[in-house]
Amino acid sequence: MSGTVMTTIRAYAALAANQPLQAFQYEAGALKAHEVEVKVEYCGICHSDISVIDNEWGNSIYPVVGGHEIIGKITALGAEARGLEIGQTVGIGWTADSCQYCDPCIHGKQNLCATSTATIIGHHGGFAEKVRASWQWAIPLPDNVDPAKMGPMLCGGITVFAPLLQHNTLPIHKVGVVGIGGLGHMAIKLFKAWGCEVTAFSSNPEKVDEVKAMGAHQVVSSRSKAELAKIKGTLDLIVSTVNVPLEWNSYLSALAPEGTLHVVGAVLEPIPVPAFSLIGGAKSVSGSPTGSPWALRTMLDFAARHGIAPQVEEFPMSQINEAIEHVKSGKARYRVVLKADF
Amino acid sequence: MSGTVMTTIRAYAALAANQPLQAFQYEAGALKAHEVEVKVEYCGICHSDISVIDNEWGNSIYPVVGGHEIIGKITALGAEARGLEIGQTVGIGWTADSCQYCDPCIHGKQNLCATSTATIIGHHGGFAEKVRASWQWAIPLPDNVDPAKMGPMLCGGITVFAPLLQHNTLPIHKVGVVGIGGLGHMAIKLFKAWGCEVTAFSSNPEKVDEVKAMGAHQVVSSRSKAELAKIKGTLDLIVSTVNVPLEWNSYLSALAPEGTLHVVGAVLEPIPVPAFSLIGGAKSVSGSPTGSPWALRTMLDFAARHGIAPQVEEFPMSQINEAIEHVKSGKARYRVVLKADF
Repeated sequence: MSGTVMTTIRAYAALAANQPLQAFQYEAGALKAHEVEVKVEYCGICHSDISVIDNEWGNSIYPVVGGHEIIGKITALGAEARGLEIGQTVGIGWTADSCQYCDPCIHGKQNLCATSTATIIGHHGGFAEKVRASWQWAIPLPDNVDPAKMGPMLCGGITVFAPLLQHNTLPIHKVGVVGIGGLGHMAIKLFKAWGCEVTAFSSNPEKVDEVKAMGAHQVVSSRSKAELAKIKGTLDLIVSTVNVPLEWNSYLSALAPEGTLHVVGAVLEPIPVPAFSLIGGAKSVSGSPTGSPWALRTMLDFAARHGIAPQVEEFPMSQINEAIEHVKSGKARYRVVLKADF
Repeated sequence: MSGTVMTTIRAYAALAANQPLQAFQYEAGALKAHEVEVKVEYCGICHSDISVIDNEWGNSIYPVVGGHEIIGKITALGAEARGLEIGQTVGIGWTADSCQYCDPCIHGKQNLCATSTATIIGHHGGFAEKVRASWQWAIPLPDNVDPAKMGPMLCGGITVFAPLLQHNTLPIHKVGVVGIGGLGHMAIKLFKAWGCEVTAFSSNPEKVDEVKAMGAHQVVSSRSKAELAKIKGTLDLIVSTVNVPLEWNSYLSALAPEGTLHVVGAVLEPIPVPAFSLIGGAKSVSGSPTGSPWALRTMLDFAARHGIAPQVEEFPMSQINEAIEHVKSGKARYRVVLKADF
């Protein structure tokens, strides 16, 4: 089968920044031995898709076929693809390939591979009929989850799940979530299931009841100095999912001794960190990118066992431009998923 | 014995900022039940002494009797002092007392107690004939160390040793030391003995041979972009001991995946940390203050076993002002210790 599969793939692409996506097709060439080909069934829209579509990070390669919260069925296997079967349902996230031989790769931290391939940068993603990835990055879905909702777990979900692993978070810890959007609402559900006391930070009073229903034990207004003062010194881990500058010192103050402010939101302005804010309480500021294949499998198993799924709004993929506008408007509750309708 | 000891203590004090220290004496009052009194034999001079003497942090309480790298013999024990004996040689560092009942205290992290007493802030330190501290913070010295050299371990030493514990540093890790002064030179010796590959950062070419003799495997000029570029992505832990702003991004770039830039130098200007610098490699910026009584004991045992002592220059305590000028001049190699001569 290897080396013989030739596929013309229909997709939606950005041909340049700040333009609507257009119907597009590309010749994917021969399937490489370590690759699998997946027929896309669902694909979430992540803010990173919009950043790459519009070249906000300056590293986009046009045409851009976005989409990296992919759920689909394997339609072809390269000769060296391991542990997967034709017809199996898998997820593909931010990373489509990694080198396999660098220290992070060989150590099971393939998400830290310096020469990894992002699914949507120099590679065509899941706003398409089909997508390809290294077998390592095609993550089998557990049986008892709803494939229509699982796409956002592959990027947004793992991005907020990985900090729990990185920081050895325990159920006795108190964790905070800043920004209750696509990532933040998944964080609340995951942290609650992890057994932690969960504090949600939100500046939107309309979200309070909803956020508590997701599992937050308390909601603190990020605009209220009094509310922030009340939780001073209490949180072991705060995960910030927002991509705008915050009153960082308020969050550093909210940390308990040995607490960590963990940043996964790609805020462009440097975070000003006073050394004294770290030294006194042995605190940290940290960050992380998505997660390894093992972390993805582990998260999906955990989500399946706890019945966790993101709250999604579904659009047909043919309405992708409308769907992206909905995300940009900030009105998505809480993640938009496209259903492939080629 | 408890409650009956009354002592007039001779000392050297700053009566206000930016003035020479003066001979001074104070009535220490009744010894509290949990306190011990120690006759000072040696006391190191730490940059923090100068910061407090000159009120650089704005929290000094005059008269200031500095000195928190103390070695001496116990002369009196409060009724509730545990595990210590009259005549025993002990060290006292940055902390003289802590509450014993807060979460960090009860969890063995007394150095993170929010209501701890610093030895030289609102309490009189070791530039004196005698000093008092809670029995918990009077750390027994191992037998086979030179008391004349051990003072600086109680603050400078533990400040660079604690990050190894906090970050679970292993002998397979590559560690860097920024700033080869009082703290930095102790860090090199400790990290070498810990089994790590040690990189020293220095902008002073005259120190290279000396720094290698201390145990550094390589010395990188912090002023050379070429040398910094060469070690990009290699260090698991960098401990910064300096109190001036650095080219922080160069050090963040020097970190390996999952690496940590750990700040113990009290630089006043906030450190600008780009979120992308943390996210891509799952990196951290952290800090810590000295260490707990357990960490102090453990460090002293480790130092004794490995024959580690700081390189010190000794002055009689009566020449304290000259000694402080020597520290301020930046010429101390590498730590100044006062020998009590009352």
